[in-house]
Amino acid sequence: MPDCAKRLDAIEPFRVMAILARARALEAEGRDIIHLEVGEPDFATPAPIVEAGIAALKAGQTHYTPALGLPELRQAIARYYGGRYGIDLAAERIAVTPGASGGLLLAMAALFDPADEILLADPGYPCNRHFARVVEARARTIAVGPDTGYQLTAELVASQWGPRTRGVLLANPGNPTGSVIEADTLRAIHAVVREKGGWLLVDEIYHELIYDRPEPTAVGLGDDVIVINSFSKYFLMTGWRLGWLVLPPALVPAIDKLAQNLFLAAPTVAQHAALAALAPATRPLLEARKMELRARRDYLLPALRRLGFEVAAKPAGAFYIYADCSRFDGDSERFAERLLLEAGVAITPGTDFGGLSGRGYVRFAYTVDLPRLREAIARMEAWLR
Amino acid sequence: MPDCAKRLDAIEPFRVMAILARARALEAEGRDIIHLEVGEPDFATPAPIVEAGIAALKAGQTHYTPALGLPELRQAIARYYGGRYGIDLAAERIAVTPGASGGLLLAMAALFDPADEILLADPGYPCNRHFARVVEARARTIAVGPDTGYQLTAELVASQWGPRTRGVLLANPGNPTGSVIEADTLRAIHAVVREKGGWLLVDEIYHELIYDRPEPTAVGLGDDVIVINSFSKYFLMTGWRLGWLVLPPALVPAIDKLAQNLFLAAPTVAQHAALAALAPATRPLLEARKMELRARRDYLLPALRRLGFEVAAKPAGAFYIYADCSRFDGDSERFAERLLLEAGVAITPGTDFGGLSGRGYVRFAYTVDLPRLREAIARMEAWLR
Repeated sequence: MPDCAKRLDAIEPFRVMAILARARALEAEGRDIIHLEVGEPDFATPAPIVEAGIAALKAGQTHYTPALGLPELRQAIARYYGGRYGIDLAAERIAVTPGASGGLLLAMAALFDPADEILLADPGYPCNRHFARVVEARARTIAVGPDTGYQLTAELVASQWGPRTRGVLLANPGNPTGSVIEADTLRAIHAVVREKGGWLLVDEIYHELIYDRPEPTAVGLGDDVIVINSFSKYFLMTGWRLGWLVLPPALVPAIDKLAQNLFLAAPTVAQHAALAALAPATRPLLEARKMELRARRDYLLPALRRLGFEVAAKPAGAFYIYADCSRFDGDSERFAERLLLEAGVAITPGTDFGGLSGRGYVRFAYTVDLPRLREAIARMEAWLR
Repeated sequence: MPDCAKRLDAIEPFRVMAILARARALEAEGRDIIHLEVGEPDFATPAPIVEAGIAALKAGQTHYTPALGLPELRQAIARYYGGRYGIDLAAERIAVTPGASGGLLLAMAALFDPADEILLADPGYPCNRHFARVVEARARTIAVGPDTGYQLTAELVASQWGPRTRGVLLANPGNPTGSVIEADTLRAIHAVVREKGGWLLVDEIYHELIYDRPEPTAVGLGDDVIVINSFSKYFLMTGWRLGWLVLPPALVPAIDKLAQNLFLAAPTVAQHAALAALAPATRPLLEARKMELRARRDYLLPALRRLGFEVAAKPAGAFYIYADCSRFDGDSERFAERLLLEAGVAITPGTDFGGLSGRGYVRFAYTVDLPRLREAIARMEAWLR
């Protein structure tokens, strides 16, 4: 067989997928496994969204939409920023994408040439650096810790900016830490990136899953910022594969032609369903799910700390707790494997989220209900004793 | 604003999108436009497929599937090759993708490094060369004409293979020509590519839309060939965004990790619906649509020839006729624009399909019913007179 592309060596599989496969194999043997490894809410898509999808199918909505999405959905997303954040946004600046994944690929392909460098935080979502590699740009990860809330700062961006740096990709809130970049820091980073003449990209896919405080969005910073968002998490539409970009007006034609070529369009039924996701009547259902996630966090965080996991700060968003497990085992992959095999609790080793710090950390996803979380804590308590 | 990526200069928007936008603007002014420009069947998705999608939504199938697709769909696709072509195929070799577009991106990203060269026919579907550019590989297009049925041959591949050539991408049948590569030629090309130590990729997205003769598939050539297919065309599922790859066994882990990173998974509802697309009970409905397409071709081809368009050979597949318009105008973009404005018939200039030969050609898509095709011919006849 001929050789494959060299980039494959730089793109790692998710270790969590091996954990998941192992967990499923144990379940097939009759073991009961608690799944705290999967980055997907356990909730089904709320009924009004599903019903809108069914209605669209019944109405024969099975053809392609325009490459940038249904005009009424682009308008609804623009209005969402108006209603929720008081930001006046032209619908033309919205590109509807096949998941946030599709949006990230479009943005990377439109902005970065080979060997262009993009700064990212480590720990971080691994796909983000892999998208850079697919277009032969280079992600440079910067180790961040509890002192900066596991996020980049303006000072870090300024000091790490190199001759080949062309942009910064933030995630707000971040995965695996759930940590939030506050509005002041966002503004300061934006100012540095603008001064350097680079691109600022902000992944806000967990954006509405910020608890107890306002959600600082980068959309209001200026029309030179690229924001990536998704219907997957807060709107509970993972399997529908739908996201969006908020774009600088001058980028829209470039993204349009790339989307025509790379995707044709996002799934039509998902776009019609998403109109219901943004409808006011659906919001209380989504908020109730969010409150349930918050209650899980508020149970799990002190419980993990009581067991001896160190968590620097209360995670403000997403549905993850990134915990230092080095007191038990300095090798998080071994720790996660033993916890699965011996206690039946599946978690993700921190090495999925970066090479710099992940060895001593694990990620708990609170994507099971409170009774199962309590059972997980009980199992871990007995096992760690 | 900072610069965009240089690759944007090499990726062209579809000219057909400008034609379509112009047509829609004319319709908004009250003009009646006949759409022969769009590469999408006018048929809605057949009822059993839509019903399977609705049933999946009602059953709460809204979460992610595995990155390579639902196991039962991978099995059903493998069985399809067994039932239809007598090819014994392991389900593990199937990767379900977000459209054939997703499959092409995965294949390009997995196989080709920067500056690796891929041979393609000109005229051809423009996205195919653009996918190469996104991963910074290089498509080299080879001018083909009526003498080789607008397709590459083993001799062309052998003589054009250069020091940087790493693969060949065929489309069978081709777009815009609808021409088919016969089984002998496929085998001969495969032998050359194998001898050269390169990759053979075959786009078979119009594969079951081959009329009057057997469909030569590359899947049976050997397990070193990559085949790209789609539920969009024969299965009439364009807006659902679902395709698949048939992969060499050794490539499956690489494609799996790339799919995890680039897509997470294909849309879940589409995957459940696709099970019904492959069900025996659906086939007569799909065959009836195919027969309708054939009847349109059999009307349109002689009618166009009678008007003075030259079409070298009867197109054996897809739903396109690629016609020489140079007798009327050597500039196909101007010709298409005038035909739209003055006669209300929208077609695609050949320049969308390649820089080498497109100036004197236009593509007619027979994606409207017979009465509208007759009306289009009547309008063109009056206009050309």
